[in-house]
Amino acid sequence: MAGPLITLTTDYGTVDHLTGVLKGVIANINPEAHIYDITHQVTRHDVLDGALTVAQSYRYWPARTIHVVVVDPGVGTARRPILASAGGQFFIAPDNGALSLVFEREKEVEVRHITAEHYFLHPVSRTFHGRDIFAPCAAWLSRNWQPESFGPVIEDYVRIALPQPEVATQGLRGVILRADHFGNLLTNLRPEDVPELQTGRSFRLRVGRGEARRVVDTFSEGEPGELCLFVGSSGFLELCVNRGSAAELAGAGAGTPFELEWL
Amino acid sequence: MAGPLITLTTDYGTVDHLTGVLKGVIANINPEAHIYDITHQVTRHDVLDGALTVAQSYRYWPARTIHVVVVDPGVGTARRPILASAGGQFFIAPDNGALSLVFEREKEVEVRHITAEHYFLHPVSRTFHGRDIFAPCAAWLSRNWQPESFGPVIEDYVRIALPQPEVATQGLRGVILRADHFGNLLTNLRPEDVPELQTGRSFRLRVGRGEARRVVDTFSEGEPGELCLFVGSSGFLELCVNRGSAAELAGAGAGTPFELEWL
Amino acid sequence: MAGPLITLTTDYGTVDHLTGVLKGVIANINPEAHIYDITHQVTRHDVLDGALTVAQSYRYWPARTIHVVVVDPGVGTARRPILASAGGQFFIAPDNGALSLVFEREKEVEVRHITAEHYFLHPVSRTFHGRDIFAPCAAWLSRNWQPESFGPVIEDYVRIALPQPEVATQGLRGVILRADHFGNLLTNLRPEDVPELQTGRSFRLRVGRGEARRVVDTFSEGEPGELCLFVGSSGFLELCVNRGSAAELAGAGAGTPFELEWL
Repeated sequence: MAGPLITLTTDYGTVDHLTGVLKGVIANINPEAHIYDITHQVTRHDVLDGALTVAQSYRYWPARTIHVVVVDPGVGTARRPILASAGGQFFIAPDNGALSLVFEREKEVEVRHITAEHYFLHPVSRTFHGRDIFAPCAAWLSRNWQPESFGPVIEDYVRIALPQPEVATQGLRGVILRADHFGNLLTNLRPEDVPELQTGRSFRLRVGRGEARRVVDTFSEGEPGELCLFVGSSGFLELCVNRGSAAELAGAGAGTPFELEWL
Repeated sequence: MAGPLITLTTDYGTVDHLTGVLKGVIANINPEAHIYDITHQVTRHDVLDGALTVAQSYRYWPARTIHVVVVDPGVGTARRPILASAGGQFFIAPDNGALSLVFEREKEVEVRHITAEHYFLHPVSRTFHGRDIFAPCAAWLSRNWQPESFGPVIEDYVRIALPQPEVATQGLRGVILRADHFGNLLTNLRPEDVPELQTGRSFRLRVGRGEARRVVDTFSEGEPGELCLFVGSSGFLELCVNRGSAAELAGAGAGTPFELEWL
Repeated sequence: MAGPLITLTTDYGTVDHLTGVLKGVIANINPEAHIYDITHQVTRHDVLDGALTVAQSYRYWPARTIHVVVVDPGVGTARRPILASAGGQFFIAPDNGALSLVFEREKEVEVRHITAEHYFLHPVSRTFHGRDIFAPCAAWLSRNWQPESFGPVIEDYVRIALPQPEVATQGLRGVILRADHFGNLLTNLRPEDVPELQTGRSFRLRVGRGEARRVVDTFSEGEPGELCLFVGSSGFLELCVNRGSAAELAGAGAGTPFELEWL
């Protein structure tokens, strides 16, 4: 039988020993675990960016995968560690909203406040809970599969909302959620927000110094230097440039506002 | 018995969820697989850079390793997905030349056009075939080991050639193929292109604002700030600076031309 | 039973095929091994940075873990490859001081000069000993667990010392050892060097253009833009800024001197 699967999503970066320590802590408790990196380059301290990252990756993992999500600007403060069961999988994270988009998508969610300190690595520091709380809890869960042993169910866990598009005089106003490695720009528009696009209504979307007027199905449909819209694999509308970077072309990134105007 | 080995070589970068999704898709189909990253930092959309990367790494892996290579600027267009058997290993990639240097090196190569859509993740997107086609095919192959079930053998698969050195009046003209993490510059010269170097013939190689006049066996033979030639572990001649960066010293990188002049 | 654990700590970076080759070499010799990256972004050629990295990660790994540490500016020269047993674990590295902080911390250390060339990958290059010596030795050790078969015990292995804090007229002078991904600055002060801090003695620490006057327990205790001291998970005093970067605020990094003055 294959070993249990544990994934890591953090803002720890890849230049330090930090992620190596998480893996060692897990291997020390459960050497059978298979540990996989999702990314360690969530934008520093950016809980929303972490929420977007985990929301776009967890669905592709098998049942019972344990996802450790550590974007934790409040480490050492009163914010709680939580263990969530959702969609047949497990999530271990600080209670700061990093799992909000998982909670939004899954119907049946059970969230527990992790209070079982015997699972922690002692002495518990006040600056590195990835090592002392989140990684060891994941490893112990991958051995005992008893979420109920980690602490009581809570209902008042933190949820944060994505910024929603707003109605403007002649269309919608929104904001770029993130730029990816290819320079594609993730907007906060979902296809259901703009059904007019499906029927081919003309539009102009202005973002930074760029302007898009066309929806494409594949990147290569765009002309060189043409900013285009497409329905991303993320479930959001995204902006792209064929073999180029929309982020560079438009001078835009996370937080840049945009306006979509119907023509 | 050890689980099957799958390696990943992509231009997806490491800041997004993309590579985590590939691993989840594979683990979902075959949780026994061991998944290893070669690199996800192939230069974006640069098929030749991907070809160089896989060519320099695959030989060190055991028989039956499955290498997934995704540098895919034409994702969503008519270019075919292929499964190649070569050198006792397997390669899954878009048919765009990314496996050219493997094909060049291996005598017995069998390439199949992957047409067995039941192996794909449905619905197949037009922007993320790593997730929907290449990763799931690798995972299924690691379960059934039946390449013939993936599609028919083809002969007209795409091969791209490395730029070849050209004869100049007093030597050779070539081009830098890539700069590595240490700033070493990979030239397109193989030792057999310049047998005169073995017999100690004097030369001057000019690249960018740098000039090399010596072949060294170890990096530390070079004087501080001296640009030197060495036979790289890649099988190409490379330029280095002892404890420094040849790329910085010469102001050169992928695509920079150079001239080697016999003295 | 779980497979043996091998970790990799190098300055090879993540853009090339190099770390993928190490993994292939190991998998080829021992496909049962689980291979984990600590980091491949040790500062290039910086043995002290490598020593700090491995010292901060190895203790969290289980007994019999094999740590491969390759920061090797002298590759190809007479410096020896070594195999060290310390703290119940194994370390394979060039004999250049990269294991110094492990040796400092562990009471019982046995160091062997690796002379058993039948474990190497032949022909042994003069530029890539990670592939030809260090990785294959780790893989063979993970199969036979016979350190004595690798070569004779030596006593004159290289140890390098961290720069020590110096007494100044009104306090101490020290140096920043490294800046981490969050911009925290690792000083060369250990808590036992400054017992006065525990009793709340007032101080002023000047580094670059920054100044700290307070010790905090959690990052979030600091005011916005306030440079603070804390006892890092590393066992050293570190400088931080709440949700900011101490490195950026102070304009400081590895090698920057600082002065701590008692008030």
